[in-house]
Amino acid sequence: MKKIKIGLLGLGVVGSGSIDLLRSSALKIKELYHVELIISKALAHSQASIDKREGLDDFNLTLDIDDIINDPEIAIVLELMGTIEPAKSYIMKALKAHKHVISANKDLIAQHGMELITCANDNKVSFYYEAAVCGGIPLLRTITNSYASDDINKVIGIVNGTTNYILTKMNEERVSYEVALLEAQRLGFAESDPTNDVLGYDAAFKMGILTYFAYGMFLKQEDIIKDGITNIKVDDLEYATNNEYLIKLVGSSIKYSEGIYVEVMPTLINKKHLLAHVNNEMNGVYIYSNALKEALYYAPGAGALPTANSVISDVLQVVKDINNNTYQRFNHYNKPVSLASNQEIIASYYFNIKINKLDDLKSLIAQVSNAKMITNVTYKEIDDNKQGYFIIKDINNNECECFTKNIININGEIINKFKVID
Amino acid sequence: MKKIKIGLLGLGVVGSGSIDLLRSSALKIKELYHVELIISKALAHSQASIDKREGLDDFNLTLDIDDIINDPEIAIVLELMGTIEPAKSYIMKALKAHKHVISANKDLIAQHGMELITCANDNKVSFYYEAAVCGGIPLLRTITNSYASDDINKVIGIVNGTTNYILTKMNEERVSYEVALLEAQRLGFAESDPTNDVLGYDAAFKMGILTYFAYGMFLKQEDIIKDGITNIKVDDLEYATNNEYLIKLVGSSIKYSEGIYVEVMPTLINKKHLLAHVNNEMNGVYIYSNALKEALYYAPGAGALPTANSVISDVLQVVKDINNNTYQRFNHYNKPVSLASNQEIIASYYFNIKINKLDDLKSLIAQVSNAKMITNVTYKEIDDNKQGYFIIKDINNNECECFTKNIININGEIINKFKVID
Repeated sequence: MKKIKIGLLGLGVVGSGSIDLLRSSALKIKELYHVELIISKALAHSQASIDKREGLDDFNLTLDIDDIINDPEIAIVLELMGTIEPAKSYIMKALKAHKHVISANKDLIAQHGMELITCANDNKVSFYYEAAVCGGIPLLRTITNSYASDDINKVIGIVNGTTNYILTKMNEERVSYEVALLEAQRLGFAESDPTNDVLGYDAAFKMGILTYFAYGMFLKQEDIIKDGITNIKVDDLEYATNNEYLIKLVGSSIKYSEGIYVEVMPTLINKKHLLAHVNNEMNGVYIYSNALKEALYYAPGAGALPTANSVISDVLQVVKDINNNTYQRFNHYNKPVSLASNQEIIASYYFNIKINKLDDLKSLIAQVSNAKMITNVTYKEIDDNKQGYFIIKDINNNECECFTKNIININGEIINKFKVID
Repeated sequence: MKKIKIGLLGLGVVGSGSIDLLRSSALKIKELYHVELIISKALAHSQASIDKREGLDDFNLTLDIDDIINDPEIAIVLELMGTIEPAKSYIMKALKAHKHVISANKDLIAQHGMELITCANDNKVSFYYEAAVCGGIPLLRTITNSYASDDINKVIGIVNGTTNYILTKMNEERVSYEVALLEAQRLGFAESDPTNDVLGYDAAFKMGILTYFAYGMFLKQEDIIKDGITNIKVDDLEYATNNEYLIKLVGSSIKYSEGIYVEVMPTLINKKHLLAHVNNEMNGVYIYSNALKEALYYAPGAGALPTANSVISDVLQVVKDINNNTYQRFNHYNKPVSLASNQEIIASYYFNIKINKLDDLKSLIAQVSNAKMITNVTYKEIDDNKQGYFIIKDINNNECECFTKNIININGEIINKFKVID
């Protein structure tokens, strides 16, 4: 039976998961692909980590990347280290040594993806990274394989498991963000430094990669508007559930007539929408398109085995490529980036504001030409102030900004602002 | 630019949808695949249908299948006719003429699939049929590409849009099956002869094909237990919603230790389960597995463009095969069929029965060793009889059968019986 040797970079959660999954699925893979996949060498980050694994592995551990790069028998390199450097340099080395590369590194691909993709193409090897977006959901390969004849116009999703876990807890137990975060950290759903997750950066990385697959446009991260979940109040959760909504951190990538708009925003989702029921650490992504209309893909967005399954699925695609004596671009779709104008972007917004006079607010809203409706108004007396919660429907980005600026003219203060999806 | 010619069999809903989609996506396909896909000939079923399309098409219409089979320029044949014959003979002819074939014909593939698959393999051509299962959901290719290193243990889904539309209407408007069926027929969601859909045959075809992809086992249709929706009463819907359930026609394919069990059954699904919220003509399929844990795939299960998108996605896979000068089995996974024993199959059941004495029923349930719980009991006085509704949890198939048979000994009559999913 044909043997294909693999070099593994990174022995963390996903690396260990990949080792385990290759072991447990070895027999099935032999039956299906008539190939034996062998991790022959793995890069550890320290002598201590080599010592710790003594007796565990049937492959060689090394501290020198060149042991893997210069091994002509290794055909596939798995980069499961995370962060930008040295992962980026190692991938470039491997690609230049004509090895196929698989990566789970969303930060790296969202920020330096085109450089890596071009390098893979120049060296006629495949570069796959299914595991970089939503862990276990087979989303990128599905867009490549099943949307080529379709025309995607909107991708919206819950793409970060950490924040979804925190928001689920806040909603179910009516606890503050701080309490829910501690619980998530205790259970391993949030890292000790949760910045990347809770401020929306991680979700923005994923939305960037999804945008590239959906529309062929590779955005700079600064073109993606992002806001996190750190300011969400129990008040807001209560308003939402009382008005048939749930609060989620939602990434959206929408095609308007002039260009695309990508953002990550805390959002009120109507309970009738399936996305509102994507809970805990699960991820779910809706794709809206001309032919398929609407589709939802839902699975764990992180975790050792779900993510490892995406990694090994990439490996098996490389096995096909090797058998066909070819290589592939993961995503063939390439268009110049074109961003939507602020005038084009229509959305509904929820406001949580402190205010003195309801009439002032009404006249302010009346000035916003496109605001078709103000609904679900609730007031609460807090000391001398009124605290109001309401939703304005069908307002464009410019008008929303103008509305937001003018709140101050009527002696109001915006405590929180969310997107609304019905 | 490379041109690939296609022969089209069938000009119905999916055939016309495929013509439209090939037109609307021609530019994108050229950009992505550097190929021009041309329908060069189409088989019509009558001279009248040829006359009706005069001036509509830029391809030749013929009544003679051999015009297509004997055309050496045609590389791909799309069989979008439906029913068994002559579709089966035409596919066999095309495969033997070394043409790649794509089919959307679930009836044919579920019943004669292995013969066609073997023929394709013998003639070294690809035979794909993504559109045969759940229309637009890219389910079969996802199982092939993303579950090869995983181990699927359960597939449950709403795989028939017609019955799901009828049940959604019955539930939302509390109308009888008969009234909801008429409405579905009026709107084109049910055929004038709805037998195949409402008795569960169509869903069983799809569950058979899904079972083949999930476990490599190609079942005979008689090995799939099936029941339809024609006996569902408004009473049952009321009981279900009052107890946090919704009624759906659910296909399930479950791996037990000794073998698999596949059925299509009216089922009470807990409202907390996302599947309970798959409404109207939509389809949704959950796949449970060792690595990925749980995943849901949700999209329209029928309709011209969603189904055509699956057809054209198959065409584009064939384009890759042609470029690589190869062919592929759609599903590599092949195992001898092994069916689960009745003792192994554990499930919960809902009963709607007419009964005289609650105590008799309680003692009957006590005899069923594995019935851990009887819950959600409701009674209604109807004339002299009591009508009772309740759920028994964790009961196996054998015990359920014994329980069902003994109802009559206590002067009871089963009006309806459903599976329950929590």
